[in-house]
Amino acid sequence: MSEYRGYEGDSLEFLKTNQVSVGDSVKILADITYSGIIMPRYEHSDDKHIVLKLRSGYNIGLEIEKIEKIEKIEKIKSAEIIVQQDEKLEKVAGLPKILLLSTGGTIASKINYRTGAVTPVLTAEELNSSVPELAKIANIDAEALLLEYSENIMPEHWLQIAEKINEYSKSDYSGIIIAQGTDTMHYTSSFLSFALAGFPIPIVLVGSQRSSDRASSDAALNLIGATKFITKSNTKGVYIVMHQDENDDTLACHVGTRVRKNHTSKRGAFQTIGDNPAFIIAENQIQKNISENFFKINEFQPRIKLDTRVALVKYYPGYNPKLLDQIIEMGYKGIIFEGTGLGHIGNTMYESVKKANEKGIFLGMTSQCIDGRIRMTVYESGRDLLDLGIIPLENMIPEVALVKAMWTMGNVQNGEEMKKIMLENIASELSS
Amino acid sequence: MSEYRGYEGDSLEFLKTNQVSVGDSVKILADITYSGIIMPRYEHSDDKHIVLKLRSGYNIGLEIEKIEKIEKIEKIKSAEIIVQQDEKLEKVAGLPKILLLSTGGTIASKINYRTGAVTPVLTAEELNSSVPELAKIANIDAEALLLEYSENIMPEHWLQIAEKINEYSKSDYSGIIIAQGTDTMHYTSSFLSFALAGFPIPIVLVGSQRSSDRASSDAALNLIGATKFITKSNTKGVYIVMHQDENDDTLACHVGTRVRKNHTSKRGAFQTIGDNPAFIIAENQIQKNISENFFKINEFQPRIKLDTRVALVKYYPGYNPKLLDQIIEMGYKGIIFEGTGLGHIGNTMYESVKKANEKGIFLGMTSQCIDGRIRMTVYESGRDLLDLGIIPLENMIPEVALVKAMWTMGNVQNGEEMKKIMLENIASELSS
Repeated sequence: MSEYRGYEGDSLEFLKTNQVSVGDSVKILADITYSGIIMPRYEHSDDKHIVLKLRSGYNIGLEIEKIEKIEKIEKIKSAEIIVQQDEKLEKVAGLPKILLLSTGGTIASKINYRTGAVTPVLTAEELNSSVPELAKIANIDAEALLLEYSENIMPEHWLQIAEKINEYSKSDYSGIIIAQGTDTMHYTSSFLSFALAGFPIPIVLVGSQRSSDRASSDAALNLIGATKFITKSNTKGVYIVMHQDENDDTLACHVGTRVRKNHTSKRGAFQTIGDNPAFIIAENQIQKNISENFFKINEFQPRIKLDTRVALVKYYPGYNPKLLDQIIEMGYKGIIFEGTGLGHIGNTMYESVKKANEKGIFLGMTSQCIDGRIRMTVYESGRDLLDLGIIPLENMIPEVALVKAMWTMGNVQNGEEMKKIMLENIASELSS
Repeated sequence: MSEYRGYEGDSLEFLKTNQVSVGDSVKILADITYSGIIMPRYEHSDDKHIVLKLRSGYNIGLEIEKIEKIEKIEKIKSAEIIVQQDEKLEKVAGLPKILLLSTGGTIASKINYRTGAVTPVLTAEELNSSVPELAKIANIDAEALLLEYSENIMPEHWLQIAEKINEYSKSDYSGIIIAQGTDTMHYTSSFLSFALAGFPIPIVLVGSQRSSDRASSDAALNLIGATKFITKSNTKGVYIVMHQDENDDTLACHVGTRVRKNHTSKRGAFQTIGDNPAFIIAENQIQKNISENFFKINEFQPRIKLDTRVALVKYYPGYNPKLLDQIIEMGYKGIIFEGTGLGHIGNTMYESVKKANEKGIFLGMTSQCIDGRIRMTVYESGRDLLDLGIIPLENMIPEVALVKAMWTMGNVQNGEEMKKIMLENIASELSS
C-alpha cells in the first residue's frame, strides 16, 4: 500500500508537508482536538479532506483548511487497525432484545489496504460494537452466518438464512436484523417473505452503500434505524431499511417484496416500486404509510423450500427464440418473462412459448418497465400470449416473481397449484 | 360485439334508458350541442361517462349527469367508423415541411370492435388527418413504413427505418417524426442514434399510451408536441417526445439514448435516466435543459449495419452458468451483462465468463439498477471480473448497451475496435 493511498492534490500535499501518512496515529487541532489514525481514501473525488478513524471506531473527514496543527504520535500497523474495534459490549437490563445476523456485504466490509478494494471481513459482533449507539436502544446478540458479497448470495443461502431465522420463531427477540450486501438484498427479502410467511416478529434487512470503516459510511445510521424500527413499530413482516435519500435525517423502510435497488451507488438507492415506502424513520418518530398487514395470512407457516429450475428471461428486440428452446431442453420448470410494456414478447417467440407450454412449464409474465401492471387483454398480441398459456403476474416486480416462482415450485405438487399460489397475495408482493 | 361494449353501471343504464347503443350516430344536448357516434369503451374504470367520436375525428368523454338530452340519428356500421377520417389535408404555403413515418403501435391503432383489443391499422396519413392542428404548424407528408406492434419491431426493422430516413438526409424537411409503439421505442431510438450519427435534421420518435381513436388518447398531443419541437428547437439529434406526466400541459423530449419506458400504462411512462428530460415542451415555449450536442461528431456518417449475435444477460441469484455456456456455443459474438449493483455477477459465473473471453466474445457490464454508474474497482469481486475481460460500460442503460453492441459489431473489423467504440460517446449514450 502506498503511504498516501487515495490522497491526491491538496490533501496529499498536506500530508507530505506535515510528514504524516496513512496508518499514523495523530493528534489534530482544528475546531476541537481529534485523536485517531489517518485512514486511506478510496474515492478520488475530493482533495480537500483527510480521513481520521477516531477511537470510537467512527471515521470522520476533516477539512485540511481548518486544521491548525497535526502531530504524529505513532505508526500503527494495518492489522492493529482491523482488530482494535473487536470488543464485547455490556448488555443493559430492561432493553428489548434483537438478533443481528451478518451475511457479509458492504455493511460488514473493510477496505483491503493492500488493493484498495472492499472485502467482507467484519463479523456481526464487530459491526455491533462499531456502532455504540445501538447499545442504548436494544441488547443486540450478534451472529455471523455467512461472509459473502451479495452477488454471491445464492438461493441455497436464502434457505440457510431462513432456517436460521426459523430457529428463533419462539424466542424472546423483538426482531431480527439481517446485515447483507445491497446488490441482491431485495431477492433475499422476497424469499424470506414467502418462506417465513406469518413470522411472529419483524425481520429487517439492512445494508450499506459505503463500507463501515470508511468516511461517510451509511452503515451506522441504517443499523440504528432498523433497531429503532423493530423496537417501536409494533409490526410483523419482512422489510429493507436504508437511507431514503442522500441526507441522513430520514430512513425508508420498504416492504420486502415491493422494493428494488434502483441506483448503483446512491445512499437512497432502494425504492418502493409504485408507492411510498411503508415507513419513514426519522430521529424521534416513525411515520406509517401503509394500512394493510404485510403477511396476508396470520398464522406462521414456515415453508423453507425452493426449486431453482426457474429462469428469468428478459425479452429484447432480436432475442433469439433458440435461447428459449435451450432453457426448455435444460429441464427448467418455470420461466418468468420480463416482457415489454403491458406484458408482451415478439411473435418470433410464439413457437417456443407453445413448446414450453406443452411441456407443462409454468410461464409467468412481468414487465421490464418495472413499475405498473401487466394487462394482456389490451392488444391482440397480448391475447395471443394468453392463449399460449402465459400467466399475467399483475404488478409483481420481475425479480420478486422469479423468487416467488422458485419458492412456489419447491412447495407445490402440480401445475394448477403453482398457478394458484403465484396469483395469491402471500406477502404484499401484489398491490392495488 | 355487445351493443354496449365496455359500458357498465350508470353509463350502461343511461344508454339503455335512452335506447341508444354503441355505433349509433347521436345528437347530444349538454353544455353545448354535440354530434357524433357513440364509441365502445375499453377501460372499465368509470361508469360516469359515455364516449363520443366527433366529426373532427376526436373522441370526447361526456359526463352523463350533464347530458340534458340524447337523440339517435342513425345506426353506423363499424366499417364506416373506420374509413370516415381518411381524407387528405390541404398544404399551407410557407410552413416548414415534416416527414411522418408510421410503423404501427398504439399511436396508429384502433380498437377492434369485434374483440375489444387494439390493432395497428391507422396509416400515417390517417393519423395526420385525425389531428387537424398539425396542418397549422407544418406541412406534413405521411408515409406508412411498417404496421407492427412495437414488440414485433426487430433489429431488421431498425435497419429499414434507418435506411428510409437516410433517403432524406439532403431533403428540404425540417425534421422527421417516427410514430412507433412505445414498448420498444427506446431500443429503436438508440439504434437510429448510432446508425445515423450526425444526421442533419432532428429525428423524433413519438408514440401513445392509449390508442388514437379512444377517449383520452395522448396521441394527438404527442404528435403536436413533436411537430412543435422540430419547427422551433433548432437542434439535431434523435429524441423521444411523450407526455411528461399525467397532465396534458407539458411534454418531455428525451435524449434517445438516455431514456426508458418505466411504467406499463401511465402517460408519463418515459423517463430520462438520472437526469431531467433534454427539453420540456409547453404550450408556447420550449425549455432546454441540456447544453451539449446530442451527436458527439458533427459530420453525418451513416453506418446502417448491425450484427444480432449479441445477447443481453440479466444476472440473478441462481442463474445457471450453463445458460451462459449455451450462448457461447451458439456462436454469439457479444454479451451485455445486466449485473447487480456497481456491476457484479456471482462467482459461479467466472468459469463460463473465462471461456467466453478466451473465445474473443465481447463482454460488457451494465447494471440492473438501471440508474447510476458501473464501478468495478470498488469490490474485489468486481476486480476479478475485470481480470476476466469484462468491460465496464459506465452509465450506459442496459438496453442501449445491447443496441450499441449490435450496431458496433456490425461496423467493426476486430475486438480492439469493438472495445474502443463501445467506450466512445457517439450519441450522448454516456453522460457525466
